[in-house]
Amino acid sequence: MNYPFKIHILGSSAAIPTSDRHTTAQLIRYHNKKILFDCAEGTQIQLRRYHLPMLRIDHIFISHLHGDHYLGLPGLIFTMHLLGRKRKLHIYAPDGLKEIIELQYEITKLIPGFSIEYHLIEKGKQKLYEDNQIKIETIEMTHRLPTFGFLITEKPFPRNIKKEVIEKYELKIDDILQIKAGKDHKLNTGEIIPNDDLTLAPSPPRKYAFCSDTAFTENYIEQIKNVDLLYHEATFLNDKADIAKEKFHCTAGQAALIAQKASAKKLMLGHYSARYDELSEFITEARVIFENTIIAEEGITVEIGQQINS
Amino acid sequence: MNYPFKIHILGSSAAIPTSDRHTTAQLIRYHNKKILFDCAEGTQIQLRRYHLPMLRIDHIFISHLHGDHYLGLPGLIFTMHLLGRKRKLHIYAPDGLKEIIELQYEITKLIPGFSIEYHLIEKGKQKLYEDNQIKIETIEMTHRLPTFGFLITEKPFPRNIKKEVIEKYELKIDDILQIKAGKDHKLNTGEIIPNDDLTLAPSPPRKYAFCSDTAFTENYIEQIKNVDLLYHEATFLNDKADIAKEKFHCTAGQAALIAQKASAKKLMLGHYSARYDELSEFITEARVIFENTIIAEEGITVEIGQQINS
Repeated sequence: MNYPFKIHILGSSAAIPTSDRHTTAQLIRYHNKKILFDCAEGTQIQLRRYHLPMLRIDHIFISHLHGDHYLGLPGLIFTMHLLGRKRKLHIYAPDGLKEIIELQYEITKLIPGFSIEYHLIEKGKQKLYEDNQIKIETIEMTHRLPTFGFLITEKPFPRNIKKEVIEKYELKIDDILQIKAGKDHKLNTGEIIPNDDLTLAPSPPRKYAFCSDTAFTENYIEQIKNVDLLYHEATFLNDKADIAKEKFHCTAGQAALIAQKASAKKLMLGHYSARYDELSEFITEARVIFENTIIAEEGITVEIGQQINS
Repeated sequence: MNYPFKIHILGSSAAIPTSDRHTTAQLIRYHNKKILFDCAEGTQIQLRRYHLPMLRIDHIFISHLHGDHYLGLPGLIFTMHLLGRKRKLHIYAPDGLKEIIELQYEITKLIPGFSIEYHLIEKGKQKLYEDNQIKIETIEMTHRLPTFGFLITEKPFPRNIKKEVIEKYELKIDDILQIKAGKDHKLNTGEIIPNDDLTLAPSPPRKYAFCSDTAFTENYIEQIKNVDLLYHEATFLNDKADIAKEKFHCTAGQAALIAQKASAKKLMLGHYSARYDELSEFITEARVIFENTIIAEEGITVEIGQQINS
């Protein structure tokens, strides 16, 4: 079996929002976990608009401290407080965000009725979060401020027992648990049935890489090898490659090259400059290099790795 | 003649935005002036959505430092900067806002390419702005933090010269200017024609009062007497008068009572609690007391005092 693993796009615009594109935020749902990657202005409104859960978000990861990636956070925290949240919230961010948030508590005389644990993101590959289902690590980006992508990696599932062997060998619950844990099975005759003959391989662990914002660099390709979905910033088209370079951003073609070199299964572009009304050229440009490309548009949901075997 | 005097509603929700109501912001257009009253999260997006000018806003008035009234400001300033603004921006706010904004410059390493002059709003009736067309004063509200409404008062227009007298008395340009300035006119015969016989009264000066947020009080009724339009917060309906009182807010009925006692020409309700999906009861409740009531809904424009004579 596979747990649902979904990315909901709440914003896809670069620095300046447009009339139909908010700035960066994504809600990640893995099984019953709700996680935010970035939290731009209007994130709380987008969550409501798309009927997505807000109070059950327990972990918020902020890639860097440019306004288009964190300005929705004070409002979201304030709304969680007004809606009666009591559970702890974890915020992972580069240095400075805690200060920005807490100054506002002091001045507005509003302290949330729940605690926030701030986790500092620092230079170097860092494991930020781990439980028995997933882990989340930083991916080091190259930008004007310290900036971090995030890689979610699923933990391997146990092998699945073949239904037919249960009857064939008259397996009891204990036997089944042992086999699922990887043990071989010994018959009453003394014959040993190897675990591989009793079980099926589970789906391979899935991976999602979120890369925003960054200059074009191959530094993190090894780390994102074979991801199921690569979200990569593509602020400009190739004809603006000089501006992209100057501003430490990428073009759609460069994002596609990263996806190709990393052997990603699918690429999702995002973080488009407000100068572009129409996004079809982003797809066209990327697909020349990497065919399986889609574009992040607000309101869409991308499911990672449909269930293959159960 | 009259200058256009319009209020564009960008948000009408109280503390928590809903899927179709942003929190408080209004764009005021008087002649060629663009002014913001409050700047909640998403204000820059709302300006774009309704095709309203952003870069030509030179004065922003913040009623108080609760997040639902100022959280759109850092993003708006950042966008103005990215769009190349050079003109000075004036921000009028209670103590603390400058600190919130400037800490974010420091941490995000982004200083706007235009200057901002902060004007401190303090207790007591205060004239914040004046030019040859309008003046803007504070109205003291009663809320949990120091909170201020704003009253825009138009300067009186000069009297209009009657067209027929120009020909009748063969008036020259100089005569006309003198008469417009209020002087009587002396004929060659020595006869004096009083100014009142030569001119028509101009439209009476228009007034707009913005009252958000406040507990129910009659303290400012004298100051807002006879306003053409009174925007008044109505966070709750009367059956929640106890909650309104506890939270230093008003009901629709209380807002109507203020409008009635102030002899306002028209009342616009706003700042509805997110618990209300449907707003028609706000109108019903207020109209029992004050008939000429409308509700602020985002995207609407209210024009103040249509042209009467020219």
